Amino acid sequence: MIAKDNQTLLLYFKKVRRDSEQLISNLSVEDCQLQAMPDVSPMKWHLAHTTWFFETFLLVPHLTNYCIFNAEFKVLFNSYYNGVGEQFSRAYRGTLSRPSLESVLEYRRYVDQAMAELLTSDNGLEEIVELGINHEQQHQELMLMDIKYNFSFNPLLPAYHQPAVATANKVSTPLEFVQFKESIITVGAALDEHFSYDNERPNHSVLMHPFSLANRLVTNGEYLEFINQQGYQQPIHWLSDGWNYIQKEQLTQPLYWHFINEEWFEFTLNGLQPLDLNAAVTHVNYYEACAYANFANARLPTEFEWEYAAQQPDTLLQLSDSAWQWTNSAYLPYPGFKPISGVAGEYNGKFMSNQMVLRGGCQFTPNNHSRSTYRNFYYPHQAWMQSSIRLARDSE
Amino acid sequence: MIAKDNQTLLLYFKKVRRDSEQLISNLSVEDCQLQAMPDVSPMKWHLAHTTWFFETFLLVPHLTNYCIFNAEFKVLFNSYYNGVGEQFSRAYRGTLSRPSLESVLEYRRYVDQAMAELLTSDNGLEEIVELGINHEQQHQELMLMDIKYNFSFNPLLPAYHQPAVATANKVSTPLEFVQFKESIITVGAALDEHFSYDNERPNHSVLMHPFSLANRLVTNGEYLEFINQQGYQQPIHWLSDGWNYIQKEQLTQPLYWHFINEEWFEFTLNGLQPLDLNAAVTHVNYYEACAYANFANARLPTEFEWEYAAQQPDTLLQLSDSAWQWTNSAYLPYPGFKPISGVAGEYNGKFMSNQMVLRGGCQFTPNNHSRSTYRNFYYPHQAWMQSSIRLARDSE
Amino acid sequence: MIAKDNQTLLLYFKKVRRDSEQLISNLSVEDCQLQAMPDVSPMKWHLAHTTWFFETFLLVPHLTNYCIFNAEFKVLFNSYYNGVGEQFSRAYRGTLSRPSLESVLEYRRYVDQAMAELLTSDNGLEEIVELGINHEQQHQELMLMDIKYNFSFNPLLPAYHQPAVATANKVSTPLEFVQFKESIITVGAALDEHFSYDNERPNHSVLMHPFSLANRLVTNGEYLEFINQQGYQQPIHWLSDGWNYIQKEQLTQPLYWHFINEEWFEFTLNGLQPLDLNAAVTHVNYYEACAYANFANARLPTEFEWEYAAQQPDTLLQLSDSAWQWTNSAYLPYPGFKPISGVAGEYNGKFMSNQMVLRGGCQFTPNNHSRSTYRNFYYPHQAWMQSSIRLARDSE
Amino acid sequence: MIAKDNQTLLLYFKKVRRDSEQLISNLSVEDCQLQAMPDVSPMKWHLAHTTWFFETFLLVPHLTNYCIFNAEFKVLFNSYYNGVGEQFSRAYRGTLSRPSLESVLEYRRYVDQAMAELLTSDNGLEEIVELGINHEQQHQELMLMDIKYNFSFNPLLPAYHQPAVATANKVSTPLEFVQFKESIITVGAALDEHFSYDNERPNHSVLMHPFSLANRLVTNGEYLEFINQQGYQQPIHWLSDGWNYIQKEQLTQPLYWHFINEEWFEFTLNGLQPLDLNAAVTHVNYYEACAYANFANARLPTEFEWEYAAQQPDTLLQLSDSAWQWTNSAYLPYPGFKPISGVAGEYNGKFMSNQMVLRGGCQFTPNNHSRSTYRNFYYPHQAWMQSSIRLARDSE
Repeated sequence: MIAKDNQTLLLYFKKVRRDSEQLISNLSVEDCQLQAMPDVSPMKWHLAHTTWFFETFLLVPHLTNYCIFNAEFKVLFNSYYNGVGEQFSRAYRGTLSRPSLESVLEYRRYVDQAMAELLTSDNGLEEIVELGINHEQQHQELMLMDIKYNFSFNPLLPAYHQPAVATANKVSTPLEFVQFKESIITVGAALDEHFSYDNERPNHSVLMHPFSLANRLVTNGEYLEFINQQGYQQPIHWLSDGWNYIQKEQLTQPLYWHFINEEWFEFTLNGLQPLDLNAAVTHVNYYEACAYANFANARLPTEFEWEYAAQQPDTLLQLSDSAWQWTNSAYLPYPGFKPISGVAGEYNGKFMSNQMVLRGGCQFTPNNHSRSTYRNFYYPHQAWMQSSIRLARDSE
Repeated sequence: MIAKDNQTLLLYFKKVRRDSEQLISNLSVEDCQLQAMPDVSPMKWHLAHTTWFFETFLLVPHLTNYCIFNAEFKVLFNSYYNGVGEQFSRAYRGTLSRPSLESVLEYRRYVDQAMAELLTSDNGLEEIVELGINHEQQHQELMLMDIKYNFSFNPLLPAYHQPAVATANKVSTPLEFVQFKESIITVGAALDEHFSYDNERPNHSVLMHPFSLANRLVTNGEYLEFINQQGYQQPIHWLSDGWNYIQKEQLTQPLYWHFINEEWFEFTLNGLQPLDLNAAVTHVNYYEACAYANFANARLPTEFEWEYAAQQPDTLLQLSDSAWQWTNSAYLPYPGFKPISGVAGEYNGKFMSNQMVLRGGCQFTPNNHSRSTYRNFYYPHQAWMQSSIRLARDSE
Repeated sequence: MIAKDNQTLLLYFKKVRRDSEQLISNLSVEDCQLQAMPDVSPMKWHLAHTTWFFETFLLVPHLTNYCIFNAEFKVLFNSYYNGVGEQFSRAYRGTLSRPSLESVLEYRRYVDQAMAELLTSDNGLEEIVELGINHEQQHQELMLMDIKYNFSFNPLLPAYHQPAVATANKVSTPLEFVQFKESIITVGAALDEHFSYDNERPNHSVLMHPFSLANRLVTNGEYLEFINQQGYQQPIHWLSDGWNYIQKEQLTQPLYWHFINEEWFEFTLNGLQPLDLNAAVTHVNYYEACAYANFANARLPTEFEWEYAAQQPDTLLQLSDSAWQWTNSAYLPYPGFKPISGVAGEYNGKFMSNQMVLRGGCQFTPNNHSRSTYRNFYYPHQAWMQSSIRLARDSE
Repeated sequence: MIAKDNQTLLLYFKKVRRDSEQLISNLSVEDCQLQAMPDVSPMKWHLAHTTWFFETFLLVPHLTNYCIFNAEFKVLFNSYYNGVGEQFSRAYRGTLSRPSLESVLEYRRYVDQAMAELLTSDNGLEEIVELGINHEQQHQELMLMDIKYNFSFNPLLPAYHQPAVATANKVSTPLEFVQFKESIITVGAALDEHFSYDNERPNHSVLMHPFSLANRLVTNGEYLEFINQQGYQQPIHWLSDGWNYIQKEQLTQPLYWHFINEEWFEFTLNGLQPLDLNAAVTHVNYYEACAYANFANARLPTEFEWEYAAQQPDTLLQLSDSAWQWTNSAYLPYPGFKPISGVAGEYNGKFMSNQMVLRGGCQFTPNNHSRSTYRNFYYPHQAWMQSSIRLARDSE
C-alpha cells in the first residue's frame, strides 16, 4: 500500500474487510465456531477481533460521538492487550456461541460504517489505520491456517475448497546452492512511506560472512527420503529439545501427512490429497527443519542471510509465493528497536522470546502483505502455519 | 412405561424422540456445537448418538434390508462401545462441525422412519427398544446439564429459557430427621414388566441397621452458613482427597455460585439469578457433600438407606423432584449382577469403579424416567449434574 | 497383643521398636535416603515418623517435664495430621538429608527412653500406646514395600537380602471353589481387649448371599496365561477406568515383571529372580485383578465374603501368610463408625474415599499384626504393596 | 591453562580432580544423594559422571589394556551422549543409592591412576584432556548450584559453609553507563593454544552499533525497589511468556528470597542471611532480568556488546567475579560453527535452541575457568545458577 490519502485508504480498507468475509463464504455457521487447540481461534472470533481492533484503537479514541457496539466485546475480543484491559481466556474462545456469527457480521458492518465516517472527516490517522489493515491481513492468513487445523481433526476430512493455487509450490528445478560473498549490507525497514511493522525497524547495517543458499525449498520427496532413512529414529540429526519433543509427541512425520495403505497422503484445504513429491514440504516445525538440514549436510540460513539473498538474485525460487522458511535466527529486537507508541505497543515487542523467525510468505498470505524485511515468528514446536525449509551452507 | 405392545411402544418412542428435539428449540446452531470440557458433549452429538444407538442395536441387526445412513457415523457417534468398534475421541466432539446440525436432524428422521417400520413388523425387541428410549431420556438430562455448563463459560451468561419449573426445589419446612428401624428389606429392581437397568438388578435382601434421614435437602442458606464459617478453609471437615481437590482447584463455593458486589448469585438455565436461600443446594461434588455433612454433625445416607426410606414414608420431601442426592455408597455391582447380554453389556457394568451412587432425580430428569431403585453415578469431583445433599445420622 | 499391663506393653513396645531398626541392618545410609515416587517414603523418614507419633500423641501430652527432642521435627515428620499442624510436603521427603540417619536413630533412643519412663509411671494410656505400636508395625510393612520400589528403579537391581520366607506363597494345590450359604453373620471387630483399628468397628451383622470362594490365590502361571492370551490388549476384560489407565501408563504386565531374552523374571527383595509359576501373583493393581477375574469367568469377593470365609473353613489356603487380596468393596465406614477421639482421629476416617479394601496379610506384614477383620486399603491403580487375587463366584 | 606438555597437564588434572572432592568435604553421605528437581544432580553423580567422561573419551579408546571399572556405569553416568549409548533417566539420578559414594570415590581413584598412566605414556591427547578438565570444572560450579538448590528445600535451611567469598559481589559504586562507539570488532575464540569450547568458535568480525553499558550489576536494593513498586503485578514490564510464567508459578520475588516478619532474607550456601542491599541481585531468571531492565528504562546487552566491553574498559565492575549476566542473545551457532569431532560433538551443539546466553562468571566458577569469550547458556525460566543483571541502553 503506497498511496495514503484517506480516500485511497478507505477503498483499501473496504477491500481487505470484504476479503476477510469472503474467506468464510464456503463455511457453515458451525465451521466458524471451531477451536481445536488453544493456538487457533474460531473464524468468528477472527472476524470479531479484527473489528474490535479498529473500534478500540481508532473509533473510540478518535471518532466524536462514537457509541461502542457492545460493551462486553471489549473483553471478549481483546486478544492480548493488557493495556486495554482484561481478556477472555484464549483457550475458551470456542465456547462463545454467543455472540452469533450473524451478530459478529452486524458488528463488522457497524464498525465499517463508522470507519468510513472517520476516514472522510479526520486526517493524521493513516499509520494506525494501516496497522489495522495489515493486522486484518495477518488474521486472514491465520483464518486459513486455523480452519485447516480444525478440519484436520474431523475424520470426514472436510474440504474448504480453496481457490486454485499458484504453482510456485511445485518445482522440478534441481537443487543448487547460490554463493554470497562477505559484505556489509542494510537490513530491516526504513520508517518511510511504506508500511512496516515495528519489529522490522530500524533498518541497520550488518556484516555478513560468506555463505550459500539453496535456490529452492526442500521438496516432499526429499523430506520423505529423510523419513525413509529413519530420520525420526536417530537422535544424531536432532537438537536435544527437538528429540525430546518428537519422543513425547511420538512424531514420525509432518503434521498433515497420512500413511494409508502403503501410500502417502497430505491433508490440505482441498481435503486429503496424494502427497506431491515435487511440492515444497510444509507444516514442519523448527526441530524438523533443523534435523532435515543436518541430515542434508547443511543448516538453516539466518534471517539476514535470507534477507541479503532476497535483495538480489533472481535465481532464487519460491522466496515468498510458496511457504514460510524457518531461519536459524531467534525473534529478538533489532538494535535501536522501539515499539510503536500507545497500547498498540504490545503488538510485537512482548513476544520477543522463545520464538524463531520465518521469512518469505506462503500461499495463505494475502497479496502484497509480505516483503523482504518481513519477520514472521513461531515457537519451535509449532507447525500449523505453512512452514518449509530452505537450506544454507557455510562457504569454505 | 408399562404397556409393551409395539403400538404403544412406537407412540412412546416418537414422543421421547420429539422431546429431545424440543430441547434445542431455543438454541442456535452455534450453541449446539459447544463442548467446554471433555465430560460434556455438544447438543448435536447427543442428538446423533442417541440415534446411532437405535441404528446400531436395533436397525442394523433386525431390520431387513436396512441401509445405514452414513458409514462414518459408526465411529463418530459411538460413545464407548468397544464391542461395536473404534470411537471418535471424546474430548474432540466439539470439533465436529460436520456433519451439520441439519444433517443430524435428517439422520434422526431417517432412523425414526426405519424404527417405525421395524416396530410395526417385528416383535420381541421390546427390551432393547425400551433400553434405547431410556438411554435417550438419560441424554435429555445430559443435554440440559451440558448446555448449562457450556453457557457458564460465556461472560454474557446466556439464558437457555427453561420452562417454568415446579417448586419442589424450594422449601421452607424445618429440617427434621425421620427414624428408621433395623429391618431386612428388599432393594433393587425385579426383572419384570417394568423397565430397569441391569445395574439395579437383581433385587435382593439387605439387613438394615437403624438410622435417621433428613426430611428434606440441605438448602442454599444452610450451605452458605458452612461457607461463612470458613468451611472451605478448615481441613477437619474434609475427606483427605476432597481437601486436596479443593486446594488444587482453589474451590471456595459450589460450581455455579458467584459473589458479585457482596451479593450471592447462581448461574441457572435462566441466566444469573440471586441465590435463593430456601432452594436446595445444587451442583456440589461428593467431597463438598461429605464436608457439609461433617460440619452438620451428620453423614450421607447409604444408597440402601435412601431406598428403604423412599419405599415408605410420605414425610420425606424432595425425594426425586428436586435434585439428585449423593449417597455414601460406591457404585458397585449387586450380588448376582449380570450385564445385559450382547454389546450393549458395556452400558453400565464397566463403569463400576471410582464412582459414587446418587439417588432420586432432578428437575432436568424427564418425567417417569427415575424410580426408587434407580442408581445414578458420578465421580466424587464432578458437579455439573444437579447434585444435592440429604443428611443422615446413625440412630443411638 | 493381649496382656495389657504396662510391663508387658513396654516389652512389646521395645521389641517392635527393635524390629524397625532391624529392617535397615543391611542397608546403607544412602539406601535409607531414597524416595522414588511421592507414595513411598525414605526408610529414615519412616523411622523418624513412627517416633514422632509416640512423641506427639503420648510424651508431649502425658509425660511431665518431657522436653521435645527437636522443635522442627513437629513439621518434618508429621505425615498428614492437620490437627497437629502443618506438614512437610510428602513428595519432598527424599530431599531431607538433614537430620541424618544417625540423628534419627538418636531421636529414637531419646523417645524410647522417655516412653519407658512414661510406661513405668503412668496408667490408662494402653489404647494409644497400642495404636502407636500397631502404627509402627504398619510402617514396617511400608518400609519393605518402599525399599523394594526404590530399588526397582536402579538398573543394578540391588538385593535387600530378605530373610528366608515361609513357603505359603507357593502352592501346587489345584484351584477349587468352596461354597458358602446364605447367612446372617457378624463382621468387624468388637471394642474389647483385642486391639483393632477404628475402621474395623463397630462389629455388626450383615446378610450374606450364597457365593463360592477360591481355595487359593491366583498363581503367576495362571496370570501369565492371561497375558499370553492378549489380556492387556482386549478392552472387554477391563473396567473402563482400568482400560484407560493401562493405555495411559502402557502397562502390559504386573509392576515387577521383566521379560528378558524370552524369559520372565520378577524383581524381588532378593533381586531379580526367575518368575515362579506356582507362586501367587503379586503387585497387581485393582484393575488388573478385576480384569483377570473377568477373564477367568469369576469376580473378586466382597470384603464380607472374605471375612465370612476366613471365620470358618480350614480349606482356604494363603489367607494371610502370602499376599493381600483385593476385594470388590470400597473402603467406606461401617454403620455406626466413630473415629478414635482426639487428633489421632485423622488416622483412618479421612481416607474413606476412592480406595478399595484388601484383606488378608502378606509376607511383609509383621507377625500378629493382621487379623480376619483387618481392612487394608489402596487406590485402584496402586501396586507397590504385595497385592494378589483370590477369585469368587456367585452361587447358582 | 596454557602450558600443554603432558607433565603440566597431569598436575593440573590432579588439582582439578582434588578440587571436586574438596567440594564435598563438609557434606554427609546423605547430602551427596539429593536431587530435588530433574535439572539438578546428586553430588555423587557429578563425581561419577566427570570420571566417566575421562574413562569414556580417553581411557577406553586410548589406554592399551585398560579394563573398565564397572560395565554398568556406561549407562548410569552417561549424561546425554546418544553416540555413546543409552542413558539412565536424568530425573531419577537421585534414586541411585548404589553405587555408594564410597564406590564412586574408589572409581575416581581407579580412573585417576589410569589417567596418570595414559598421560605419561601417550601424546596428542591434550585437546580432549583439556576438554575433560574444563568439563569437570563446569561440574564443580554445578555442584555448588545444585547443593544450594537441594538444601533450599529443607526447612532446616542447612549451611554448606562456603569458604570466605571475595567482595566483588558487593559494591557501593553509583550506577553509570559507559559509552561504546560503532565499530567492527572480533568476537569469539581463536583455535589456538588457549582452551575454548567449540561454541565460542570460530572467532569472527561483527559490526557493532553504538550502545552504553552499566558499570556494575543491578543490586538487591535496586531490585527490591522493582518489587516494592509492584513490578511483579504489572504486565507492562514483562515479556508475554514471562508474564505467563510468573502467573503460573506464582512468582513474586527471586528464587532464594524470603520475606519473614517484615524483613527480607536470602538463602545462601551459608544458610539464611539478611538480604544485602548492596550485593548484586542473583538467581533471577531471564524474564525477571528483562522485566527489571524495562522497569529501569533500559535493556539487556547482547552477548557481543558484553564481549566488546569486556575487551576494553577497566571501568566496568563485576565482569566475571560476581555473577553471570543474562544477555539478550539466543544461544545459537556462530557463523562457521563446527562441533568438535567424534561423540563428544554432542557436548554443546545440540543444545542450541530455546536458551539464552549468559556472560561473565560467578563466585561458584572455578578460577581461570571463564574468559571474555565464554558462552554460558540457560533456559529463560531457570534461576538456580548464579545469574544477575547488567543493564544496557541504545545510544542516541
